[in-house]
Amino acid sequence: MMMRTDGRQADELRPITIEKDYLKHPEGSVLISVGDTKVICTASVEERVPPFMRGQGKGWITAEYAMLPRATGQRTIRESSKGKVQGRTMEIQRLIGRALRSVVNLPALGERTIWIDCDVIQADGGTRTASVTGAFVAMTMAVAKLVENKKITSFPITDFLAATSVGISKEHGVILDLNYAEDSTANVDMNMVMTGAGEFVELQGTGEESTFSHVQLASMLEAADQGIQKIIEEQRRALGPAASLIPSNISKVDPI
Amino acid sequence: MMMRTDGRQADELRPITIEKDYLKHPEGSVLISVGDTKVICTASVEERVPPFMRGQGKGWITAEYAMLPRATGQRTIRESSKGKVQGRTMEIQRLIGRALRSVVNLPALGERTIWIDCDVIQADGGTRTASVTGAFVAMTMAVAKLVENKKITSFPITDFLAATSVGISKEHGVILDLNYAEDSTANVDMNMVMTGAGEFVELQGTGEESTFSHVQLASMLEAADQGIQKIIEEQRRALGPAASLIPSNISKVDPI
Amino acid sequence: MMMRTDGRQADELRPITIEKDYLKHPEGSVLISVGDTKVICTASVEERVPPFMRGQGKGWITAEYAMLPRATGQRTIRESSKGKVQGRTMEIQRLIGRALRSVVNLPALGERTIWIDCDVIQADGGTRTASVTGAFVAMTMAVAKLVENKKITSFPITDFLAATSVGISKEHGVILDLNYAEDSTANVDMNMVMTGAGEFVELQGTGEESTFSHVQLASMLEAADQGIQKIIEEQRRALGPAASLIPSNISKVDPI
Amino acid sequence: MMMRTDGRQADELRPITIEKDYLKHPEGSVLISVGDTKVICTASVEERVPPFMRGQGKGWITAEYAMLPRATGQRTIRESSKGKVQGRTMEIQRLIGRALRSVVNLPALGERTIWIDCDVIQADGGTRTASVTGAFVAMTMAVAKLVENKKITSFPITDFLAATSVGISKEHGVILDLNYAEDSTANVDMNMVMTGAGEFVELQGTGEESTFSHVQLASMLEAADQGIQKIIEEQRRALGPAASLIPSNISKVDPI
Amino acid sequence: MMMRTDGRQADELRPITIEKDYLKHPEGSVLISVGDTKVICTASVEERVPPFMRGQGKGWITAEYAMLPRATGQRTIRESSKGKVQGRTMEIQRLIGRALRSVVNLPALGERTIWIDCDVIQADGGTRTASVTGAFVAMTMAVAKLVENKKITSFPITDFLAATSVGISKEHGVILDLNYAEDSTANVDMNMVMTGAGEFVELQGTGEESTFSHVQLASMLEAADQGIQKIIEEQRRALGPAASLIPSNISKVDPI
Amino acid sequence: MMMRTDGRQADELRPITIEKDYLKHPEGSVLISVGDTKVICTASVEERVPPFMRGQGKGWITAEYAMLPRATGQRTIRESSKGKVQGRTMEIQRLIGRALRSVVNLPALGERTIWIDCDVIQADGGTRTASVTGAFVAMTMAVAKLVENKKITSFPITDFLAATSVGISKEHGVILDLNYAEDSTANVDMNMVMTGAGEFVELQGTGEESTFSHVQLASMLEAADQGIQKIIEEQRRALGPAASLIPSNISKVDPI
Repeated sequence: MMMRTDGRQADELRPITIEKDYLKHPEGSVLISVGDTKVICTASVEERVPPFMRGQGKGWITAEYAMLPRATGQRTIRESSKGKVQGRTMEIQRLIGRALRSVVNLPALGERTIWIDCDVIQADGGTRTASVTGAFVAMTMAVAKLVENKKITSFPITDFLAATSVGISKEHGVILDLNYAEDSTANVDMNMVMTGAGEFVELQGTGEESTFSHVQLASMLEAADQGIQKIIEEQRRALGPAASLIPSNISKVDPI
Repeated sequence: MMMRTDGRQADELRPITIEKDYLKHPEGSVLISVGDTKVICTASVEERVPPFMRGQGKGWITAEYAMLPRATGQRTIRESSKGKVQGRTMEIQRLIGRALRSVVNLPALGERTIWIDCDVIQADGGTRTASVTGAFVAMTMAVAKLVENKKITSFPITDFLAATSVGISKEHGVILDLNYAEDSTANVDMNMVMTGAGEFVELQGTGEESTFSHVQLASMLEAADQGIQKIIEEQRRALGPAASLIPSNISKVDPI
Repeated sequence: MMMRTDGRQADELRPITIEKDYLKHPEGSVLISVGDTKVICTASVEERVPPFMRGQGKGWITAEYAMLPRATGQRTIRESSKGKVQGRTMEIQRLIGRALRSVVNLPALGERTIWIDCDVIQADGGTRTASVTGAFVAMTMAVAKLVENKKITSFPITDFLAATSVGISKEHGVILDLNYAEDSTANVDMNMVMTGAGEFVELQGTGEESTFSHVQLASMLEAADQGIQKIIEEQRRALGPAASLIPSNISKVDPI
Repeated sequence: MMMRTDGRQADELRPITIEKDYLKHPEGSVLISVGDTKVICTASVEERVPPFMRGQGKGWITAEYAMLPRATGQRTIRESSKGKVQGRTMEIQRLIGRALRSVVNLPALGERTIWIDCDVIQADGGTRTASVTGAFVAMTMAVAKLVENKKITSFPITDFLAATSVGISKEHGVILDLNYAEDSTANVDMNMVMTGAGEFVELQGTGEESTFSHVQLASMLEAADQGIQKIIEEQRRALGPAASLIPSNISKVDPI
Repeated sequence: MMMRTDGRQADELRPITIEKDYLKHPEGSVLISVGDTKVICTASVEERVPPFMRGQGKGWITAEYAMLPRATGQRTIRESSKGKVQGRTMEIQRLIGRALRSVVNLPALGERTIWIDCDVIQADGGTRTASVTGAFVAMTMAVAKLVENKKITSFPITDFLAATSVGISKEHGVILDLNYAEDSTANVDMNMVMTGAGEFVELQGTGEESTFSHVQLASMLEAADQGIQKIIEEQRRALGPAASLIPSNISKVDPI
Repeated sequence: MMMRTDGRQADELRPITIEKDYLKHPEGSVLISVGDTKVICTASVEERVPPFMRGQGKGWITAEYAMLPRATGQRTIRESSKGKVQGRTMEIQRLIGRALRSVVNLPALGERTIWIDCDVIQADGGTRTASVTGAFVAMTMAVAKLVENKKITSFPITDFLAATSVGISKEHGVILDLNYAEDSTANVDMNMVMTGAGEFVELQGTGEESTFSHVQLASMLEAADQGIQKIIEEQRRALGPAASLIPSNISKVDPI
């Protein structure tokens, strides 16, 4: 199998860097770069929950996602100028919030909301998965601060959480971590969010005017599995000492 | 394993009926009932494509989805009154359109748009999968009419397409075709869209503040597989002679 | 005078059917068919009134109206997609609410709101008058349930209420209950809402780029009068035993 | 019968003044006062028609209506601040446009639009009928200018047009031209638009949580009839020489 | 230097008239004319402050600004029809509110809001400065009424406030109080809001695709200074006895 | 006079850095930091002008401005979520566009638009002036690329352009380049945009519930003058060789 256009192997991730404490105001913030995709992820703590959650003694985590107009090759119109948020944006922000909530013990968080903001400043494919990966780090920092300030007594994050994409291209078969050019031409595109223990949180596979078989699915799951474990290593490195607050789950990955 | 609250086995579908030609104006229309979930699906042919598609000699298929305010146990506010379409609605309508396009040869359709409208008049879980299943039948009827009227020369639909849900509940493990009560309490919820040949088109699994393993995923895929083949039988029955226009694909299902 | 295109006499109604308990969730619901016009009318009880009514010890009745995109010959764009409700829709929903309130003793209803939803699934003229007629039945059922559940002690509906249209066409003069083709070509179009006692509740006559005389008005009123009494018979049949809860008002119709 | 609170007889209009050429920019403009109700009505000529009218060789007349926030006793929020136009506003502007079109020969107007703007600067009941009455004068002036400038060759206005309200109050029975206090307490409220020939253009009667009989309707029509003829005298006076351009229709009023 | 197109000297204001008590409902109202620019300014008292001000024991003053569609030579689309308020409108209403607040002792006003509405009925340049000048008079009248009704004990307005424009044109150099034609062609446009004591409240100078020097700035300030003092004379005349409630500030104007 | 809270002299700027080519997609981009205020400014070239400019043979420059939700101490709601752009945002983006246009020869730019996007990622006062300063550099780079690619033949930028703020505080009198804490408490706040030649482009001074004298104005102008010349040095350094394309204007600053 020949190399991909950027020189990667089929199952190779792009370089990842996670710059912690990127902004001074938020309780947690990172600039995550996955190849040329760059996202500012912040976590803001609000000492109340939305109306539908009140009085349940539980916390809430919600996310918003946006792109700078010129994060992309062609300038895109701002959603504020259009006066409405697009379907794609809503899908992504719902995914980010849902994924993060799966690794947080909400009652242990107490009646407060963590607002996650993911703002893509440069896009080259995989912005939603980079957002999940970066947001997890920003959230962990904000939560660590709550523990440090004795706002909460037990650490409510139950496992690591990271995301990546896999797909199927005509030239390379199953490929990991698609960049924009690959994403535009792939027959199948699958986003995966997994925990440190190797369990699935979200799995969204789409045949782009195409379909895929059980065998192809199995290959994609395998590629994503190993990729995500490497991304979690990067999160651990970025978090430094705070990483040790997250329980080390014995991998529950079962053989396929 | 004990029976589900409505008396079904874990891998049993709810009763499905598809009433063809439900409305007089649309080119294709059905009333689909899946248990107590009832959706009016219509297909409307417009003799042009949206601006971003013009001049490519290809057709387009797009979908809209809505619920009557009192389709649900509690009345929900109309999206027209709120002045905006919710994220959940957008996700669903994007899914329906994308899924249908995967089994249509768009160049063979010619430069025209098929508008799919799925309006839920009664909701009891699985409205998005019932919408896909019903919309496929409405679309097929509209396309058959195009062939009959000699607007297009070759039948552009390449395979059957149907959808259902699977999930994991505490009491029953993997269950097929969740009703509203089951959907509200399941740990994991997965929507699957598949073709007559047993290939995947969409696969969206979500741990609801939970996670799931590779083994659990395999069980869910298996349950969905056989459920969808039964649903396709129902589509075939509803379509009558028009069903024979759809190519019979040798099942490409590969062993897990 | 020759027969109308659908074979009716000038003063003849289209066939009406009212299917009670059409949906399982709402407190009251019907599917009303007036010729090819079909409307789902539901009544939902909310145990509070809007802010401007609070503390007055009175109930409130409000209505919303919409059409499925393909209720019409040409697909119409959803109001939720356009992000705004059209003037025609607003006029109709204000009319429905106001008309229903005229036959309800609001203090006897108590501080609760009845939400009426009229969703046109197939349109062939007269959707607003069919909505009033159907909504009256759905509302009566919801109110009967409140009485049955001892939420209210005296039955607050004071009379029957039904609606129809009359118009003036070139070929047929005054005609009753216009279908879409007749409505599009009539010179004058008048919607009438009347009570069981033969009193007027709403009377909206419009010369469509035309005018009408006192004599023509008198003929239209007469045709509508007798039509509405027949429609009320149909409501009575649909309601069954619940019809007897509505006071039988000695007709107060005065000679013209 | 005792006098009304402002000293009028039951069938007496409030004083009307129509100040022509009130603003310098519009092709036609008036300030109309009906009692304390004051409306600025302008007519603007645009040399094209809306898209749905193009190529038909006909003109179009459309109207917009608004109130200054402090036209009323309590300040009302601007519709521009709320970001949407209310149902009441839409009803009124549709009524004004439709009424004016009924006395204009649209093909004779040519492919141009007359925009009518009615802005209420002080409200004391009857703002919509004052708007129709004032708008007719503004429109006539704009059309006269088109004739003068040889843009159109034959005068396209076919008759006078004016509007007023009638109602039924507990103390006074049928009353003409209701002010705000009367309008708020009347059982029945009817707006009438009529031509110089005494024909009906619009007739909108509403029982406000009440009903009305055939006899009451006849009395209201009679009161409105004679009121409107007096209002037309006022329009004639305001128009001066331009009034003579409008054909004098032999009254077609038929005996009741 | 030759005369301006309307015959004025470079440093001459247009004729100003301020008609007090123009409308019957508002607590304060004027019709201000500055040349052909005419604005209705009203002041409405609301006995509460916006949420962000509550509990601070201070009052609030806020303003809204709009133009009738045909205030201008070409009809402009209503902001309510467009569903959004334009940037220019927002700038102007923020300016009016901010300017008025600078001469009001907000704690002395008590926890109430004065809503200022400036509606331009005819525009010929300088609508924002005419609005400030007229709004000051309307506000003063509303405040005087609060004092008269013993709602507040000490008069909270600390000085007169008025506004005008200055600019630089190719033919005339520095000119005062620009009309629409002058405003459209001036190289520099500056709006000034000043107090009776000759202090600045707002100063907004803009090179229209051009720039201006320190010397030019000084000339513009001088022209505006003397113009504003004359406008204040006009406000004093309109207010009559109420003018004496405003403290007479010894001019603090310092030599340039 | 004592030092400011961050140790600066009254007439001292905060440290400025301008990082060129910050993003890979835009034709021009910088990250500008002024103290803790950080703004990403991009310039995008579109090969057409807005409809109102077409056919005039001139270019156009327009700007949009936004803040990340957590650029501020408290999280602010996204304008896209609110569905409308705030007045403050509109004021700022209009200012940026207008200011840049004052130093560009629009006919020499040709019929194309330069879109400026200023996205504040961290806010500490002076975001609008930092945006102008940074946007000038991004625009210059985009224009230099047009020259390089021979899209335009003569360099259309006529002078440097930069902005800063001045204000009056109780403790320090006139201060230059206010940070957020100073801006919140200053009595007077003035934003200035000036050219390399020392001419004014925009001058917006506001007494915040306060006023200011001619003498104070003169001091503020003087402080801003020298500050802006220093900022231009920084722009020159960031631009490197491209700086030499901008004509060196003999300072036209005149003595006050």
